[in-house]
Amino acid sequence: MTDVIFYDSVLRRNMTNHETCRFGILTASDRASRGVYEDKSGPEIEEFLQEILLTPWEISRYLVADKKEDIEKGMIDLIDNKMCSVVITTGGTGPAIRDVTPEATEGICDRMLPGFGEEMRRISLGYVPTAVLSRQTAGIRGKCLVINLPGSPRSIREILEKIFASIPYCVDLIGGPYIDTNPEIIKSYRPKK
Amino acid sequence: MTDVIFYDSVLRRNMTNHETCRFGILTASDRASRGVYEDKSGPEIEEFLQEILLTPWEISRYLVADKKEDIEKGMIDLIDNKMCSVVITTGGTGPAIRDVTPEATEGICDRMLPGFGEEMRRISLGYVPTAVLSRQTAGIRGKCLVINLPGSPRSIREILEKIFASIPYCVDLIGGPYIDTNPEIIKSYRPKK
Amino acid sequence: MTDVIFYDSVLRRNMTNHETCRFGILTASDRASRGVYEDKSGPEIEEFLQEILLTPWEISRYLVADKKEDIEKGMIDLIDNKMCSVVITTGGTGPAIRDVTPEATEGICDRMLPGFGEEMRRISLGYVPTAVLSRQTAGIRGKCLVINLPGSPRSIREILEKIFASIPYCVDLIGGPYIDTNPEIIKSYRPKK
Repeated sequence: MTDVIFYDSVLRRNMTNHETCRFGILTASDRASRGVYEDKSGPEIEEFLQEILLTPWEISRYLVADKKEDIEKGMIDLIDNKMCSVVITTGGTGPAIRDVTPEATEGICDRMLPGFGEEMRRISLGYVPTAVLSRQTAGIRGKCLVINLPGSPRSIREILEKIFASIPYCVDLIGGPYIDTNPEIIKSYRPKK
Repeated sequence: MTDVIFYDSVLRRNMTNHETCRFGILTASDRASRGVYEDKSGPEIEEFLQEILLTPWEISRYLVADKKEDIEKGMIDLIDNKMCSVVITTGGTGPAIRDVTPEATEGICDRMLPGFGEEMRRISLGYVPTAVLSRQTAGIRGKCLVINLPGSPRSIREILEKIFASIPYCVDLIGGPYIDTNPEIIKSYRPKK
Repeated sequence: MTDVIFYDSVLRRNMTNHETCRFGILTASDRASRGVYEDKSGPEIEEFLQEILLTPWEISRYLVADKKEDIEKGMIDLIDNKMCSVVITTGGTGPAIRDVTPEATEGICDRMLPGFGEEMRRISLGYVPTAVLSRQTAGIRGKCLVINLPGSPRSIREILEKIFASIPYCVDLIGGPYIDTNPEIIKSYRPKK
């Protein structure tokens, strides 16, 4: 059984005249990639995006083992070939030796955004003290924002509900398409000029 | 029109027998440095210092484009030639490709102080969710503390009002002159020995 | 007088059938290591561990000058020879030029855990604004967790009481022995599988 599984992207919604925004989702998990259990984290992120996005979007998903090289290859393909403007990873952010998603992220990004890691840990610390152990980070490669989420589906939603508000403006700043969200769930924030 | 504008320093106040503390202010802004609009951020920092400082001080101000080399040169001149003990930058801390102030700061500092970036983002997150995108940092070069502030004049004051309390003690620790502040605005904190 | 003082380890408690966990404590202090004053910080950490640990443990303590090489040698000996699963340092985390414990920690660790530094600064900021100046960090070398605490005995306890809850699970994840704590003081947290 292969350790890399790729779900091809499809256009999901087109309610507006805005350019389509491509989202990449990458699950890093030895066991899910070997089929030992089902990946629930990647689909959880996809479902969240489906609930909140008002502007047109597409999703590409990767499921890879906790190998730095595979994670890097998956992210690079999503960014450089699939032209994603946002890549969200899940899994591989803990202190264990197999957890290498932050290293892969730093490896492929041009610059890092330390605020996301700080804020995501602070959010999760409201739920579990072991959130301090997370090494989640975020960065930018070209015109794409890359964000690491933890592996647990519950934490994913707790975090995305709080941080997604700043993602559309970040994508504006790095030259990506306009993203709008359902304000009843996520109020996207753009500073007034 | 040149992209680097330098305001020479003058002695502003001398109410005590303490040694004069030199402050450097560096605004990084493509548009302000080309004269497209007025730099309001540098003057805002200067006004804040004027309001709070009780010990003698001087200010030197630079206004440069968002170019790493120019920002580095400006900071090095303020620290190595103008002998500033505190350099405060404004602008160029966002995620956009032209934002390079944190890189310049890291480039010229001997060591970094991660607490300032964390705390400044946390302060601004109380006002706007997009504060998570800021890459502000702080560090030390020789006997000078360097701190990045965001570009918006309003954020500058929100942040300085909360973090300035720890700057006089930091300058003590790195071998700079004694700084005292108006306790009705900023209560400078020095731990009891 | 030598600048490096080593206290050999002894088995302190064995209330359970669990494997013994070795803790290393390293005090970095020019003055304490020269005998100018007594090291109160190392013993404070030892006393805290004695109060909270229910599983068997041993302690080895180093007292070294604020020299990067000595701190690194001490940490490496505690980890590679004494087989410690947790090394806690105290002192040398400020902005002054003699403060080099974070550099030494980063120098000997395989990977860093940024969450600890963030959380420890946030805890201390509840007490003193100058906590923003601390450069405390944490990381992993092999199967050992290394954490920097500040030098003040009072801060040590303020921090350990809040962060220790996540240490036993971290040691699980990096392959160390099972640690349990007195739940009346510290409720160790392990996520349910």
